[in-house]
Amino acid sequence: MKKYVIGIDVGGTNIVTALSDFQGNVLFKTKVSTEAFRGYKNTIFRIKEQIEIVLNNKGAKIEEIAGIGIGVPGLIDVETGMCYFSGNLGDEWQNVNIRGDLSSFDVPVFLDNDVNVAALGEKYFGAAKNSKDFIYITIGTGIGSAIIADGKMIRGHRFCAGEFGHLTVDKNGPQCTCGNIGCIEAIASAPAIARRIKEKINSGRKSIMPELAGGVERVSAKILSDAYDKGDELAIEIMKETGEWLGIAIAGYINIINPELFIIGGGVSRAGDRLLKYIREEVNKRAMKIQKETCKIITAYQLDEAGMMGAIAAILEYLNIIN
Amino acid sequence: MKKYVIGIDVGGTNIVTALSDFQGNVLFKTKVSTEAFRGYKNTIFRIKEQIEIVLNNKGAKIEEIAGIGIGVPGLIDVETGMCYFSGNLGDEWQNVNIRGDLSSFDVPVFLDNDVNVAALGEKYFGAAKNSKDFIYITIGTGIGSAIIADGKMIRGHRFCAGEFGHLTVDKNGPQCTCGNIGCIEAIASAPAIARRIKEKINSGRKSIMPELAGGVERVSAKILSDAYDKGDELAIEIMKETGEWLGIAIAGYINIINPELFIIGGGVSRAGDRLLKYIREEVNKRAMKIQKETCKIITAYQLDEAGMMGAIAAILEYLNIIN
Repeated sequence: MKKYVIGIDVGGTNIVTALSDFQGNVLFKTKVSTEAFRGYKNTIFRIKEQIEIVLNNKGAKIEEIAGIGIGVPGLIDVETGMCYFSGNLGDEWQNVNIRGDLSSFDVPVFLDNDVNVAALGEKYFGAAKNSKDFIYITIGTGIGSAIIADGKMIRGHRFCAGEFGHLTVDKNGPQCTCGNIGCIEAIASAPAIARRIKEKINSGRKSIMPELAGGVERVSAKILSDAYDKGDELAIEIMKETGEWLGIAIAGYINIINPELFIIGGGVSRAGDRLLKYIREEVNKRAMKIQKETCKIITAYQLDEAGMMGAIAAILEYLNIIN
Repeated sequence: MKKYVIGIDVGGTNIVTALSDFQGNVLFKTKVSTEAFRGYKNTIFRIKEQIEIVLNNKGAKIEEIAGIGIGVPGLIDVETGMCYFSGNLGDEWQNVNIRGDLSSFDVPVFLDNDVNVAALGEKYFGAAKNSKDFIYITIGTGIGSAIIADGKMIRGHRFCAGEFGHLTVDKNGPQCTCGNIGCIEAIASAPAIARRIKEKINSGRKSIMPELAGGVERVSAKILSDAYDKGDELAIEIMKETGEWLGIAIAGYINIINPELFIIGGGVSRAGDRLLKYIREEVNKRAMKIQKETCKIITAYQLDEAGMMGAIAAILEYLNIIN
């Protein structure tokens, strides 16, 4: 009898694999390094190994598994289970048939990209419980997002919807990795924040951040909150500017989608209300009346386990076990 | 036996009422002025009158009408058939129960806002036939839009989705009617284009536009295309700038929604390829690879009758007669 699902978060650094019941209670999980440099086939081998390990640990049989959900940092075709491209996992992850390569287990496999999967985690187990209309964004190395409208994820014509990080907010702004200039990602992602701090310090601004970080070159978005709490002027300025630029972009996004919740996850969201207060102020200045009055801006619940819980949610939703 | 529907476009200027068969063939239509200044009850009276007229002209009976579709320039609750607010139709249109006020006909009534309705017209009878993922924008007095994702309209938590006109593209840009500054509507709507032309002329720029229009104060977005065709330098500059700003906003919108079609309607779209070429160039510079390669940017089909055909499409879809 089917009574479990398996959720797998394939990250650039680690693979997290969990055995869960149908309510999302995790019975056992493992975490191993991805070692993406060893190539696609090796990673698939490691995934299969972890599936066996979580099964064996709980004495579960594959016949008891209703399905396997997987989050991958790449462009995924949810219909075919193919990965077309993954910047994080390397060149071998182009046009690979992940579903096919896991078919030996003979259970349904559902794949989606990591951001969509994290949004499903929030929908079923996190900040968006009972919400039919919400946006989830993640601010880390990049900025990505997922849109749930009327209970359903917007995937787009070629499964690329949600690329909020590449909304232009500053026509003549800094170069972005995508080729465009002035994208919100080029201003407010973790590396962009670090770059902006370093630029200011290198142009002569005083700050305790280099000391806190152990050198200018080691300054990062993480240091920003510490320095902010100590009243560092540059840290306050950078936090405020970052919140304002994010607020400009988020106000536009809220106007277009009219969600009831706007959930911010990813490493940069650990700044919490230090950052959110500036975002909220800017959204309040710029978004339309009904849109802003009926939308709460909050941080994500599942920061550490977003990917794993999302992969569990994704397969439970795919199998219509939860909705 | 049911064999017709009625579609009604309630505009700020005119009410267009059409009797249609189930394939969207218009059998008879009327156009009367809205006379919104006479108040809500008067307009409802005029709508009822026009319904009787289109029925009588074809000898149709109300028993043969499957439903009535109505497009209204305002904030509509599609579930209750209420209009919460209409900037164009006046203060009396706050919290009015339009569906209830037409209940005497005893047929299903479906209302939606004019932009959503026009998008449905494109979906069933226009540029978006067979498309499940498209965006429709209208550029006229204001800029509005509708999103169809996986065949379904995104309405938002409070029915306000699609307010693309209030995406901030220029942080320190011109004042918008919504209270924000730097919205794309404040730069590229018909009145904003006219304002930008006048500012340039008043600051000493030479142009044939005042002569073509019969005075600086009469310069409008319509004149721009004529002057552009005559090689007027200022007209070319304004057209290019308008296309660039629209392209910045549209590139972001395409990145977020990943549609296969981006349809531009409304008065300003009559500039056609004069404007679209600059929009396409900017989108090509700024949008992401797959998003831009798989999305066509085109003008709307139903320019004159967008509202009427849309109202017919809306009721046919609501009744599941077409899909």
